[in-house]
Amino acid sequence: MLTPENDSPPVYREIADTLRIAIASGELSDGDRIPGENELMKRHGVARATARQALSVLINEGIAVAVRGSGVYVRGFSPLVRHGRRRLSKELWSTGRAIWGADTAERPFATDSVTVSEMRAPAHVARALDLDEGDRVLRRRRRYRLDDRPMQLATSYLPAELVAGTSVTRPDTGPGGIYARLAELGQAPAHFTEEIRVRMPSPDERTKLSLSPGTPVMHVMRVALTKEHRAVELNEMTLDGSAYVLQYDFDA
Amino acid sequence: MLTPENDSPPVYREIADTLRIAIASGELSDGDRIPGENELMKRHGVARATARQALSVLINEGIAVAVRGSGVYVRGFSPLVRHGRRRLSKELWSTGRAIWGADTAERPFATDSVTVSEMRAPAHVARALDLDEGDRVLRRRRRYRLDDRPMQLATSYLPAELVAGTSVTRPDTGPGGIYARLAELGQAPAHFTEEIRVRMPSPDERTKLSLSPGTPVMHVMRVALTKEHRAVELNEMTLDGSAYVLQYDFDA
Repeated sequence: MLTPENDSPPVYREIADTLRIAIASGELSDGDRIPGENELMKRHGVARATARQALSVLINEGIAVAVRGSGVYVRGFSPLVRHGRRRLSKELWSTGRAIWGADTAERPFATDSVTVSEMRAPAHVARALDLDEGDRVLRRRRRYRLDDRPMQLATSYLPAELVAGTSVTRPDTGPGGIYARLAELGQAPAHFTEEIRVRMPSPDERTKLSLSPGTPVMHVMRVALTKEHRAVELNEMTLDGSAYVLQYDFDA
Repeated sequence: MLTPENDSPPVYREIADTLRIAIASGELSDGDRIPGENELMKRHGVARATARQALSVLINEGIAVAVRGSGVYVRGFSPLVRHGRRRLSKELWSTGRAIWGADTAERPFATDSVTVSEMRAPAHVARALDLDEGDRVLRRRRRYRLDDRPMQLATSYLPAELVAGTSVTRPDTGPGGIYARLAELGQAPAHFTEEIRVRMPSPDERTKLSLSPGTPVMHVMRVALTKEHRAVELNEMTLDGSAYVLQYDFDA
């Protein structure tokens, strides 16, 4: 009985409902301070533990954020819009600009924690890249930040024999990044497929992305294909769900 | 201090970590029963409250699901793949088949809780449909189920003058749905744009979609445009995040 349901909701839920309505109605708006424990205790005549539980409900729903030593605030949502097609258009990487430029209104992403290694392809990678079991892949892991905020973890896998001896195997892949290097090898990405799912973060992802409680992540798996439909890269991305809106255009 | 951090993690977190590792390694896999409170108490020499807290961590992370009166299980993930372009291709709705057929391997979605009303366009709807403030829209709300599982809440808005007197204003829109009716009016959708964000559900959404704790939702805003780029529908969808993978294809 981990989630018992009673007929009348407990007091902390009623207080949380009141605050939620104040937020939904705009009475409390983005970034506003929510009444703290002391004020809720006074206002509703409840114990500190009850007031704290009420605030925890809103925090776990992701509509409020606790700021250490300051209080609890209405979470603002002013995300980065990431446009599938525009962001990966050939004009960008073929002129040596990082593809990230398209999203961020020209503010560049910073990359950190880059690690590059070679390994046997894990089963899902072999499947995505149409490799045989035992084939080797180059794995590039990195984190993207915008200003000082971590936004995304990304792990790319490329067939090892394809990129051997190129700067794709080095931490800094040079102007235009991986896709510009693939183009130089005659393997320019021409088609992309992206699969998106959503879930709660693992403790490791929560730490690396500095996520507040109640923040889900988007998990994006992108495969880049050449115009001959050879799969040349799988990129597994974990995006801070409070930081992104993904946008896609397509025709009927 | 709602989220205090200590140097050494509390015991319930250590137990949760052990279980999480067992799940990540495949020792416990999809649908397996996780050791219950009694077994965790014995195994780790802890009180019932501690064992319960450890299980709650996994439930709130969405990697375990509590089944009332039975126990706690590893959550399986066998989602529906929703393919942007294929799903909305003209061949489907122009032949009178519901567009949902494309996703569900021919298993039809059932619709319930359909409500239709006319109203002044809310600000974000007026913006999406390029209407003036005060213009009227038809609003269609409904829920989609697959078998007995609720999967999605959807609210469509269409310019009221465009669809007045057609079966778009009736609960049952007829074969091919809204898009087939728009085509008969010479306003067939030709382009779509979708914006996706993720968040935790509201209590109302949690109830209507029967979501377990730790389940985020995807919020999809789709605008349908004619070939002259007139916006003819905004569809705001809330998807059970444990039920869907969204897929998009595009070219460089």
